[in-house]
Amino acid sequence: MSLRVLGVDPGLTRCGLGVVDVAGDRRATMVDVGVVGTSADQPLDARLLVVANAIDDWLDRHHPDVVAVERVFAQQNVSTVMGVAQVSGIVIAAAARRGIPVALHTPSEVKAAVTGSGRANKEAVTKLVTKILRLQEAPRPADAADALALAITHAWRAGSGAAVATSGPGTAALTPAQKAWAEAEARARRGR
Amino acid sequence: MSLRVLGVDPGLTRCGLGVVDVAGDRRATMVDVGVVGTSADQPLDARLLVVANAIDDWLDRHHPDVVAVERVFAQQNVSTVMGVAQVSGIVIAAAARRGIPVALHTPSEVKAAVTGSGRANKEAVTKLVTKILRLQEAPRPADAADALALAITHAWRAGSGAAVATSGPGTAALTPAQKAWAEAEARARRGR
Repeated sequence: MSLRVLGVDPGLTRCGLGVVDVAGDRRATMVDVGVVGTSADQPLDARLLVVANAIDDWLDRHHPDVVAVERVFAQQNVSTVMGVAQVSGIVIAAAARRGIPVALHTPSEVKAAVTGSGRANKEAVTKLVTKILRLQEAPRPADAADALALAITHAWRAGSGAAVATSGPGTAALTPAQKAWAEAEARARRGR
Repeated sequence: MSLRVLGVDPGLTRCGLGVVDVAGDRRATMVDVGVVGTSADQPLDARLLVVANAIDDWLDRHHPDVVAVERVFAQQNVSTVMGVAQVSGIVIAAAARRGIPVALHTPSEVKAAVTGSGRANKEAVTKLVTKILRLQEAPRPADAADALALAITHAWRAGSGAAVATSGPGTAALTPAQKAWAEAEARARRGR
């Protein structure tokens, strides 16, 4: 039984989307990856509509079990944070409309889950996403790799019971088996 | 010929909604007003879905010609700004999906349009909205009055060619007639 996760790195200029199937043994396989881009020359409503339509399309085509979205902080870059938050609102509402649970993960949680360090740079994240998913080429741009990293992070953290869910059951309780799994996973990560 | 404007004061705890018909002679009539509230106890996705469904409902019931949304700044209250931005993204995308133009107005533009002063307090805005719309009672809470004020502001500024549209035609050009109208309107406002 595998978990299908749609990871979304929200953004107005570039919104990264990545779908990953993660098996019970933690093995992760890429299903789809892409980036929706809009130009700052377009009016805001046209830009948000392009992203909203893309999200709807990805949800309807891939039927994820859960949507993992990067958690946005108001402390981030002020010039882009509003667009990021607007897109994240659209993504979360689109998933909720379909009854799909949504989980938020911070960038440092994603870096830690994928690379073992919460301070890893984008290049390290891309490199490990490529390795984890056994891809021939690194996903580009970084937003695409980030979306895949979010999806992997969610599946791995959900397995270890550490996910920060905004909804739904299945992520709050931590069974002894999940604890053991989390510890094994942490050891495997250190061994990479 | 009148212009029907849906004003939205975006928010996660309280989202104000107000529909106003504004005639060619600037006379404004309230069509509907309300507030959608969600509790901080609910998960974020459930809250955003409640607001998204309400927006869809208001758009489908009232068929506004334009949607006026309060412009959000990242400099505002950090603890609430993310929810406000997420809701504004949902509102703008919902309008765009229906081909309805969206315009953004800052709080000070709204205060200036309705009260004549960009620094008016909430009480003054509510008082003048009540007067402009010839209501028996003041709309409560303030978010409801703010939504009506946004709708009035948009219609009046659109008439005067000063609207900040994110989309669509009809607000960019300023004809001599519109100039005269804007001047007359400014005089009338000073006279209140």
